[in-house]
Amino acid sequence: MTRSGSKSPTDLWSVAGTGVQKRSDHVATEEPMEIRLLAGLQRRTVAVTMRTPGHDFELASGFLFAEGVFATRDQVHRLTYCTDPQIDADQHYNIVQVGLRAHELPDLAVLERHFYTTSACGVCGKASLEALHIRGCAKLPPGPQVAAETLAGLPDKLKAAQGVFRTTGGLHAAALFDSNGTLVIVREDVGRHNALDKVIGWAFLEGRLPLADHLVMVSGRASFELVQKSLVARVPVLCAVSAPSSLAVDLAREFGMTLVGFLRGDRFNIYAGPERVRVASHVPDR
Amino acid sequence: MTRSGSKSPTDLWSVAGTGVQKRSDHVATEEPMEIRLLAGLQRRTVAVTMRTPGHDFELASGFLFAEGVFATRDQVHRLTYCTDPQIDADQHYNIVQVGLRAHELPDLAVLERHFYTTSACGVCGKASLEALHIRGCAKLPPGPQVAAETLAGLPDKLKAAQGVFRTTGGLHAAALFDSNGTLVIVREDVGRHNALDKVIGWAFLEGRLPLADHLVMVSGRASFELVQKSLVARVPVLCAVSAPSSLAVDLAREFGMTLVGFLRGDRFNIYAGPERVRVASHVPDR
Repeated sequence: MTRSGSKSPTDLWSVAGTGVQKRSDHVATEEPMEIRLLAGLQRRTVAVTMRTPGHDFELASGFLFAEGVFATRDQVHRLTYCTDPQIDADQHYNIVQVGLRAHELPDLAVLERHFYTTSACGVCGKASLEALHIRGCAKLPPGPQVAAETLAGLPDKLKAAQGVFRTTGGLHAAALFDSNGTLVIVREDVGRHNALDKVIGWAFLEGRLPLADHLVMVSGRASFELVQKSLVARVPVLCAVSAPSSLAVDLAREFGMTLVGFLRGDRFNIYAGPERVRVASHVPDR
Repeated sequence: MTRSGSKSPTDLWSVAGTGVQKRSDHVATEEPMEIRLLAGLQRRTVAVTMRTPGHDFELASGFLFAEGVFATRDQVHRLTYCTDPQIDADQHYNIVQVGLRAHELPDLAVLERHFYTTSACGVCGKASLEALHIRGCAKLPPGPQVAAETLAGLPDKLKAAQGVFRTTGGLHAAALFDSNGTLVIVREDVGRHNALDKVIGWAFLEGRLPLADHLVMVSGRASFELVQKSLVARVPVLCAVSAPSSLAVDLAREFGMTLVGFLRGDRFNIYAGPERVRVASHVPDR
């Protein structure tokens, strides 16, 4: 599952009204990348971020520059991928080493406290999925069955429930529906992951977890992080207004989640778990 | 600058072709939130994330649940805001304390290493801006002057340069232009902040920083984080296809950056620094 290109091929089921067709397309590649700082004999991992492979040295440099770790080009000795033979080959191009000219690492106290990384463990897609198995996350059980018309109705319900978006155009939303498409709750935030955390946090505080027999819909794209959060809450069907990433698709398939993308009415794509979707009374062939 | 609502009023300059009008509107509120875990006499900050205020207890619960810090409702004793009188009142509603029933904090080693927070320091908007002053970030100098037609042409140039987006619909882009609107470089990523890090990292590695006399354009929204990264690279004009957040506007104004939102052709909004934009040969009144 380690990919070097910026897009990855995937099979999907394309639904349009009462028609469904299996076809191939591409999704944006998402893979974790670890940034390590080296100075003299010292070495330290300072971030793990989900990214699209490509221009990785620029990403590491720009990130560390923005964080104030270095200010000028001559402070950086060299940029390399970690190709230590003890490290799984899958991970080689997901670990960037930034060698500083200084003999000691800078004070990273501020950096470490206020750091951007994702919740991903491991530095290849496969390791990210395995980390969830290790945490005890089991495959989702079968069901529920959801009619394509039910899914087609979700975007309008989400829009109707979204208050602030209309006035600011600046908020992401996440909504929880039951399997008949009845809205349970909607939450908004500048961060998509925050909007989903609020929905799942609400369910947690209300004693409503696990969310079996429920659907979640998010505005925008479906990333690894959103699928992971939904999986931990045991959501069987996750729908996004826009495209999923490669690792989001991998994760949904690995754990038996139904992942729907480009849901904008009666046309949408199913990227994983088509067996939960009933189109014109039948279920798409795998 | 601490706001409790999900939207904040702002003044802006609305440009349509050769016309420009000053008006009031709302932007989505963005403020940092710190999550603290309490157990017995132990206390620890586990994350600082940029979020839209509201449903903060749900956000903290959902985040910690997704990270595996607790699994059931009864492990959580209570959720409170930190109203310690020693803490600046601005910060009271930006610090959520999650009290556990356990007498000791769980092992947070995994959590701390692979954590999601932003690069923001401080837990109110004001502190986030001050942290940049403390880091030595100065106000941007005047200039360059950019014609409205130059800005109007950026979205098409960005689209033309974006390769993967057309095939996957799943990537964000950041592009660097000179002040005449000539494309210098474009980078794509599943994460908008990563795409911008790649652009600035490229300039860093090429010895092209600071980016005075350049424009940056990003797909999607403009958050605090994107303005902060642009500011450190000394970019005078940042343009976004969609809406800015409240803290993005505050930061741009504080440091004299021009911030343009909803740039989709010859209609766009200027949220900060209108003096750099020439509309029909004149500059909007402040």
